[in-house]
Amino acid sequence: MPEELNYRAAGVDIDEAQRALRAVLPSIQATYNDRVISGVGGFGGLFAADFADMERPVLVSSIDGVGTKTKVAAMMGSFKGLGFDIVNHCVNDILCQGARPLFFMDYFATSKLSGLAFEEVVTGCAEACQAVGAVLIGGETAEMPGVYLDDEIDLVGSIVGVVDMAKKLPTPEIQPGDAVIGIASDGLHTNGFSLARRALFDMGGLSSRDTVTGLTTSIGEELIRPHRCYFNAVYPLLQQENSGIRALAHITGGGLYDNVPRVLPSDIQVVIERRSWTPLPIFQMIQEIGGISDGDMFRAFNMGIGMVMIVDRTQAPGIVQQLVQAGEWAAILGETQRGSHDVQIV
Amino acid sequence: MPEELNYRAAGVDIDEAQRALRAVLPSIQATYNDRVISGVGGFGGLFAADFADMERPVLVSSIDGVGTKTKVAAMMGSFKGLGFDIVNHCVNDILCQGARPLFFMDYFATSKLSGLAFEEVVTGCAEACQAVGAVLIGGETAEMPGVYLDDEIDLVGSIVGVVDMAKKLPTPEIQPGDAVIGIASDGLHTNGFSLARRALFDMGGLSSRDTVTGLTTSIGEELIRPHRCYFNAVYPLLQQENSGIRALAHITGGGLYDNVPRVLPSDIQVVIERRSWTPLPIFQMIQEIGGISDGDMFRAFNMGIGMVMIVDRTQAPGIVQQLVQAGEWAAILGETQRGSHDVQIV
Repeated sequence: MPEELNYRAAGVDIDEAQRALRAVLPSIQATYNDRVISGVGGFGGLFAADFADMERPVLVSSIDGVGTKTKVAAMMGSFKGLGFDIVNHCVNDILCQGARPLFFMDYFATSKLSGLAFEEVVTGCAEACQAVGAVLIGGETAEMPGVYLDDEIDLVGSIVGVVDMAKKLPTPEIQPGDAVIGIASDGLHTNGFSLARRALFDMGGLSSRDTVTGLTTSIGEELIRPHRCYFNAVYPLLQQENSGIRALAHITGGGLYDNVPRVLPSDIQVVIERRSWTPLPIFQMIQEIGGISDGDMFRAFNMGIGMVMIVDRTQAPGIVQQLVQAGEWAAILGETQRGSHDVQIV
Repeated sequence: MPEELNYRAAGVDIDEAQRALRAVLPSIQATYNDRVISGVGGFGGLFAADFADMERPVLVSSIDGVGTKTKVAAMMGSFKGLGFDIVNHCVNDILCQGARPLFFMDYFATSKLSGLAFEEVVTGCAEACQAVGAVLIGGETAEMPGVYLDDEIDLVGSIVGVVDMAKKLPTPEIQPGDAVIGIASDGLHTNGFSLARRALFDMGGLSSRDTVTGLTTSIGEELIRPHRCYFNAVYPLLQQENSGIRALAHITGGGLYDNVPRVLPSDIQVVIERRSWTPLPIFQMIQEIGGISDGDMFRAFNMGIGMVMIVDRTQAPGIVQQLVQAGEWAAILGETQRGSHDVQIV
């Protein structure tokens, strides 16, 4: 008679997944609004498509992951920030098209489900959703022994928002001489972690508990600082008549070099003055220890700039002032010029 | 002077990701329709929210993964089916709420990007989207060395569809004495792979090239057969006046036991006659080799039934006939009874 096998013995624990889901249900339901028709438990999340306040509503969607930031979170035993990371990443992405978020879905996968990590992540997602008025309408949890390394996780988020066609970004008005505003990031956000870990931990032999040069915080604390959300500071500006805002670029993988051109017309370039801001100490530390070139740093990391705005030059000082009043660090970094669809950092 | 480090040396190749994306762009763009306002390259996919043909449009969304089926695909060196798997899984899920798909997004993650696997997967996604009129509006690719085991991949999909409120499923009309129809699956679909691999490969010592008992096809071929899509057979029936269809349940992880109750009122149970269909040979083989109980088999696998319909009993024979004419194997499996919100297989 053969040895008996069941799903738990094969490494998948459906009961644990259901128990963990029950634990986070109150946080999830706290994100619901009167447009949610059904959520957890059904085969799909139902959300009323009522856009009576818009002339030509356009759904704006995005999907993203948090990358190997999960490894640093595991190192620190602190997972809640990952929930903020993935929601804020997605919210910032669709904000670049002028959209406000409607609903969000998460996917949490690991080799072996730990209720604690899952609960922290989903609670973080729920709180980040609530902060921007998005509904956490669905999610999926997967245990995949033999695909993920032991104790490793991946976290994916998918978002749907809406913008009225007339307010869609980028606008067709971008022209030479527009001002380029940068808004500060809170660190690496969710990009460049493979390079950062290699430099700091492998080459530098440092641990997450070591202190960042020039700071009192540890490397681990700096690295897991959540992705900053720009929605609450920026979206109200977009709603103003003649806001002067022509484009937004979220600075993620590929950095300023790859992300700013995504919103530029083919005959426009952006020239950014390197001295207009100082990258955070963590970036300087990674660069020094890893002996990484400026070009590679600016392609792997946001280098301290999480969002770039292209705006009417005459309105730029007022926009910077409003951003600062809303709690952001913001400054004019440079300008647009006639050119070949790229970014020059001078 | 320290050794120099760049992102490629740290295990992440942005250029390879961009090259692979260019290769699949034509397949992706073939899914576009006149409601797509912008797709690849922007920070979000834009899709016109024009539901003029509906009284109260409701967006229906879902997110899912393909689980460790990716391991069998890698074993077989055949990845295109995974694209069909994830799209069809998502399409079937929102079909259970009565929805037709609008757009889909994929997330492909791996330790080290192989252009070939990525291209096959995304081409599969695009073809599966086209088959149901869905737009492949966005996607994300992640290289995560140190999170995924070497050469392992994960594939996640997120879908948004729409249903008119009055046609939303399940309907409130489910009552004792309704007929329960089953539609055949094409094998494991995307659930139970950890258990199947443990039984067949670890306990049974078989390889993917060995033949399934009673068939001429190999175990590998049976296992990677794509998830069947029920949309084109079922959705037209839902549009008929007085269709008689009261609920649909997609049989995925948790099997008949966990998925059918998701659409039942709290005072109704479903009684299914075990002899009304014969599970496919692959399930019998897994059960015998693994010494797995009936209960565990029915909780881990679909056991040959991919979709369950609860319908007006008088209309059941006509619905079965229409499904068969549309190319599905379908049969009446049992009925609903007054009871405690569960499934009994007798």
